[in-house]
Amino acid sequence: MKSTFSLLFGGISFEHEISIISAITIKNILKENIRHFIFLDSSHRFYLIPHELMKADFFAQKGYEKCKQLHLCQNGFQTTGIFKTSITPECIINLIHGADGEDGSLAAMLDFYHIPFIGPRMEACILSFNKAYTKALCKERDIAILDYEVITPNKKPSLPLPLILKPARLGSSIGINIIKDQKDLNYGLDCAFEYDDCVLAEPFISGIKEYNLAGFKANGEYYFSTIEEPQKTEILDFDKKYLDFSRDSKAVEANLAEDLKTTMQDYFKKIYEGTFEGALIRCDFFIHQDKVYLNEINPIPGSLAHYLFQDFYKCLNLLANSLPKKRKIYIDYTYINKIKKAK
Amino acid sequence: MKSTFSLLFGGISFEHEISIISAITIKNILKENIRHFIFLDSSHRFYLIPHELMKADFFAQKGYEKCKQLHLCQNGFQTTGIFKTSITPECIINLIHGADGEDGSLAAMLDFYHIPFIGPRMEACILSFNKAYTKALCKERDIAILDYEVITPNKKPSLPLPLILKPARLGSSIGINIIKDQKDLNYGLDCAFEYDDCVLAEPFISGIKEYNLAGFKANGEYYFSTIEEPQKTEILDFDKKYLDFSRDSKAVEANLAEDLKTTMQDYFKKIYEGTFEGALIRCDFFIHQDKVYLNEINPIPGSLAHYLFQDFYKCLNLLANSLPKKRKIYIDYTYINKIKKAK
Repeated sequence: MKSTFSLLFGGISFEHEISIISAITIKNILKENIRHFIFLDSSHRFYLIPHELMKADFFAQKGYEKCKQLHLCQNGFQTTGIFKTSITPECIINLIHGADGEDGSLAAMLDFYHIPFIGPRMEACILSFNKAYTKALCKERDIAILDYEVITPNKKPSLPLPLILKPARLGSSIGINIIKDQKDLNYGLDCAFEYDDCVLAEPFISGIKEYNLAGFKANGEYYFSTIEEPQKTEILDFDKKYLDFSRDSKAVEANLAEDLKTTMQDYFKKIYEGTFEGALIRCDFFIHQDKVYLNEINPIPGSLAHYLFQDFYKCLNLLANSLPKKRKIYIDYTYINKIKKAK
Repeated sequence: MKSTFSLLFGGISFEHEISIISAITIKNILKENIRHFIFLDSSHRFYLIPHELMKADFFAQKGYEKCKQLHLCQNGFQTTGIFKTSITPECIINLIHGADGEDGSLAAMLDFYHIPFIGPRMEACILSFNKAYTKALCKERDIAILDYEVITPNKKPSLPLPLILKPARLGSSIGINIIKDQKDLNYGLDCAFEYDDCVLAEPFISGIKEYNLAGFKANGEYYFSTIEEPQKTEILDFDKKYLDFSRDSKAVEANLAEDLKTTMQDYFKKIYEGTFEGALIRCDFFIHQDKVYLNEINPIPGSLAHYLFQDFYKCLNLLANSLPKKRKIYIDYTYINKIKKAK
């Protein structure tokens, strides 16, 4: 069954602008298969954006404020005001990176209002949004990870330098610093704590190889993307990531031994299974001394990592037709009726 | 500062009816300090319930359908229809047990709409709603727990009998069975899998002592309740729990050695700190051979375990004035403006 999609983007997040770039990129790929562009502004208001206005500058100029405002209702959205129009998306694509989108808020709301969507469910969000929980999840599921330490404001890292410090709940390299010298440690901690009360310290391994693998599960089967070795400096910075998300060429398959590829795919399945159903995710791996380590899970990767897939629309279609269903709960007031009878 | 409260109850949950009983119980305690009763029905519609209609039978008869319907908006609710009335709660008490309330959905929505509330935040919900994550969290934070095993439909438990089987994501003893004989194992598994794809197996220790301790953190300090040894049969069943939640007498302090009490309070702090801020929770402990084990976290205990506190209204007031704040995120389109300039 061929689906049409409605893109949800923006959000109160440090990655608000990345989300706009993602949406514009996906617009150029899915073209007429997109029915609605739904923008969430910096005050948590939803707007319906006409196709022809989907340009970065339009948002920076706050042009959206003149668009139709929407509010959530069962099965979709409704315009506000006296004469209401209903919007019933066939399938939303949650493209809100960072807070709101990846922290579980919108997953909760879309589920609550019974709106079908591609994206991580609430539980998957919580476990991947906080890097400390991702580490714990990997340990539970026997997935190799680099050593790490959870740092709180009154605790210094005990791992030896060089270190990499990351706020636990932020993507896109924001607040991340590499500490090679003891004298830079306090600065690095200050940077990270500016964004989160919880910071992760990891050993920094110079020249470590990084690989990205995206994928999803549909109809009981796993679909994997090309494995790419992203171009990078020591940290892929904010600007570089922007450009990366908006690119339109296909990725080149990394030159990797078969067993390492298989390990990455196995780790991907272990992390995805039972948790990320409904989402197209990207896992970022390290290879160090011929061993694979899971680095991070991107439950809503920039522009959904479309450039890693040969037929991206087909992938979204498979996923849209295989979204997880919630169990029905029937409420019949058995207990209250029973005590009433007993009286 | 003295607060007024708005009770949010109902929800699509196996504990829908318990939530109604909880709300009626809290009404009788907080009396004129309650401003609104907001009911969430079995189709996810919100209703404003007049004080005088707060009777169990009224809900069983679907009387609420004639009440004013509400929808969420920034800072509160609005009546639907052309002539809108706004409802701006000073502080919501999330009294929705089980799904919707304890799974993070309503926490996400109340936060999204900037409505102050007492109750677990999204992350706290995910970590306590799924008993498997609670176990993992305890391990991370050095809290003693009984042995356990996560069972999926194609895996049998390997722990020896007698066992207790529990659906991972359900409260109020629903779907729980004690398996003493091998021949009952399949039945027990079927019962549990009816409610969840993920089931927990734990050793069943006959006659193990159980203790309940509730508490919360406000203004940087912990406030603990009386520790109670609940009256129970082997499993505190659904009916028994109902009656327990609606009782109005104060609990009696359990006869326990000081060091065991201190361990319970220490475990409580370890589990709460950094995760459950904003909530009044109840932790259920076991004592076996003079050692304390954390059994379960109730992030929204039945009738908020009011009977464990000497001055319940004072507790709620302390908590209402010390709710966690989200960090501000400013969106100023720096990046988009920068690329525009560069063009």
